[in-house]
Amino acid sequence: MLSLKSFFSKKKTDTFSQKIHQVIGFKPKNIELYKEALTHKSFYRNKSYSANYERLEFLGDSVLGCIVSEYLFHSAPNQQEGYLTQMRSKLVSRKKLNKISKELHLIDLIRKDKESSLGENIHGNILESLIGAIYLDYGTKECKNFIHKNILNKENLENLENQISSYKGMIIEHSQKHKINISFETSEEKNAQNHTVFVSILKLNGNKISKGRELSKKKAEEIAAKRAFYSLKIPQND
Amino acid sequence: MLSLKSFFSKKKTDTFSQKIHQVIGFKPKNIELYKEALTHKSFYRNKSYSANYERLEFLGDSVLGCIVSEYLFHSAPNQQEGYLTQMRSKLVSRKKLNKISKELHLIDLIRKDKESSLGENIHGNILESLIGAIYLDYGTKECKNFIHKNILNKENLENLENQISSYKGMIIEHSQKHKINISFETSEEKNAQNHTVFVSILKLNGNKISKGRELSKKKAEEIAAKRAFYSLKIPQND
Repeated sequence: MLSLKSFFSKKKTDTFSQKIHQVIGFKPKNIELYKEALTHKSFYRNKSYSANYERLEFLGDSVLGCIVSEYLFHSAPNQQEGYLTQMRSKLVSRKKLNKISKELHLIDLIRKDKESSLGENIHGNILESLIGAIYLDYGTKECKNFIHKNILNKENLENLENQISSYKGMIIEHSQKHKINISFETSEEKNAQNHTVFVSILKLNGNKISKGRELSKKKAEEIAAKRAFYSLKIPQND
Repeated sequence: MLSLKSFFSKKKTDTFSQKIHQVIGFKPKNIELYKEALTHKSFYRNKSYSANYERLEFLGDSVLGCIVSEYLFHSAPNQQEGYLTQMRSKLVSRKKLNKISKELHLIDLIRKDKESSLGENIHGNILESLIGAIYLDYGTKECKNFIHKNILNKENLENLENQISSYKGMIIEHSQKHKINISFETSEEKNAQNHTVFVSILKLNGNKISKGRELSKKKAEEIAAKRAFYSLKIPQND
């Protein structure tokens, strides 16, 4: 027969497991991993070091980076490395991970010293440690599903791309700020079907950086600007 | 019957495939991936952009980071996140990847414009792009095997740890360089078996950072220094 104490401690464990189940969408197998993922070091105040979320955060951060990279590699087959790098850093920015973690109410599950205040980035950190725990508990496939469902849904990627309204505008702004001499040299050509096409060559300090070819002058310049933007790796909030 | 031209072009393809087979230890399934991984953009000089190693390098870099993180997580179960992060950056440093790539003679397989000189880091970059290609061609398991065999063999990790001869020395050097006031306060205690043990408390600018407990004063200080070193994330070449 269960003692009153073990009855309560069992009930408490079940509740934690059920809450994790609700968040991740499947039943945790090794609940200890999730406890570790959701324990702050302040929980062990005045005790010698014991398991907190930081090691799993280290792992989860890498797993997340890898899964997001693979997703971008396949979703943007015509984009160069610079574009993929920028999109990845947008998809897994501290701000975004903090926001997603808050939507999942992960902070309500954390074990910590009552008096410790943990700062804003704890939210994203424990989302990453949770990803580390899922990866070790269920492997790549379920972890990928969790990340796709919560971080990589299509709306997010489209939103990110839509944030860029004009690459030409950003390139000009960047060049003015950094005193770089920029020019678009656009000429008309005939294509194989004898239609007029516009070819825009973007030069920075006289050096050719990129080229765009399109049916309107505006589009050709925008393509040249986009290619330069990603090959020069210009930060968007430059 | 094969024409002379197609006979030679077939032979050339086979040779590339055989060379890749020799490097990775198994037969490539999708040879196009490996061609992409080993093509420099200069190969397409005066042509519009086409597939070069950079996208696969983006993917391979992430895959490598993930597999190395998982390896460290399991190999060093008692080490904190700071230690794991430092060891990872040592294991996959540019210098180390360049060296391994040279040992595999990857540069001999690259397609590029003859006149282009590619710089030192091309070696590590195409090792990463090759990892990206293996990951897409064979999945996680074979990719893990390749990385374990070529990058994570035990000797490497031991070497890395052995590079650190004295954490106390490094902490002192760091504190002198950055004008930080550092002290080791070491006292004697009796343990449960009534033996004398030494407890060393490391303070930085008067704040307790870490503690070491051991059977000699020197060892206690070294443990305190090691804990501080990794929790403060001091770079080794600081």
